[in-house]
Amino acid sequence: MTIPALKNAIRDIPDFPKEGIIFKDITPLLAEPSLFKLAVDTLAGRHRDSRIDRVCVVESRGFLFGSAVAYQLGAGLVPIRKKGKLPHETLEAAYDLEYGTATLQVHVDAFEPGTRVLLIDDLLATGGTAEASARLIEQLGGKLIEIQFLIELAFLNGREKLTKYPVFAPIVYD
Amino acid sequence: MTIPALKNAIRDIPDFPKEGIIFKDITPLLAEPSLFKLAVDTLAGRHRDSRIDRVCVVESRGFLFGSAVAYQLGAGLVPIRKKGKLPHETLEAAYDLEYGTATLQVHVDAFEPGTRVLLIDDLLATGGTAEASARLIEQLGGKLIEIQFLIELAFLNGREKLTKYPVFAPIVYD
Repeated sequence: MTIPALKNAIRDIPDFPKEGIIFKDITPLLAEPSLFKLAVDTLAGRHRDSRIDRVCVVESRGFLFGSAVAYQLGAGLVPIRKKGKLPHETLEAAYDLEYGTATLQVHVDAFEPGTRVLLIDDLLATGGTAEASARLIEQLGGKLIEIQFLIELAFLNGREKLTKYPVFAPIVYD
Repeated sequence: MTIPALKNAIRDIPDFPKEGIIFKDITPLLAEPSLFKLAVDTLAGRHRDSRIDRVCVVESRGFLFGSAVAYQLGAGLVPIRKKGKLPHETLEAAYDLEYGTATLQVHVDAFEPGTRVLLIDDLLATGGTAEASARLIEQLGGKLIEIQFLIELAFLNGREKLTKYPVFAPIVYD
């Protein structure tokens, strides 16, 4: 099993969630045990020789990989969620959508300053969600070691919003 | 580390998401590496000697545990999501809310008939979500080996809706 096997398992869904968008459906990859394991090991494997204290995961497809990566690394798991979902006191960061803005939140006591953090989401598109999530981690005093995505849509240039951080994505669409 | 340590890490949030509800906040448990690992190992450990092909996880807090359990067991991961989130053709099941109904969906090709499935969500309350999820698994021809929750609110009698299935929850509030 190699990285091309991961890419082969991703399914294009035209016009989802709206006309003109080709959605990258990762559910066939998740469902296949050897591919799911390969994806998780590919992300976690980059940090086996350093210490990762917390894996921050972005709602909600980021949860599907990040939980297993945190477990594999012996780290704790911190959800970054859409506004109104986290029950305790939060910090928040807004990011731009095509029309308007959206807001992400993290608990104010999610981790201590100096914590070594990995940030995981499923897909890098324009980078707005990841950039807002990274800001939340920095506001908490976290040391952001790497931002990891399973998939990068390179033609949307999301990395330009994330030049301050190391970024890794094993599956790239040019 | 023992099960009482898990319970001690859960935080009561009064009046969330609305007045009169005491929300069980699992984020302190998730964030602490040893507790997160213990929770995942407690769920996965019950099935190390049998075969689990797929772990079905219920949006979205179920994703936070179920992904790591699937990884630990060498299983594939299948998301059960709220209506409109899954991009491919779906089966759906409705369940009752306090006012009205809600709908869960699973991809029609999530797994083959005869697949051995574990169903995971974070919390058993009235059992409506789990019962609808179990129906979806049965419609796909899956063999539902166990339904697992991290937390059971026993005073809401959710198990009464799930008497057809083995149910396991390590943390119980009477």
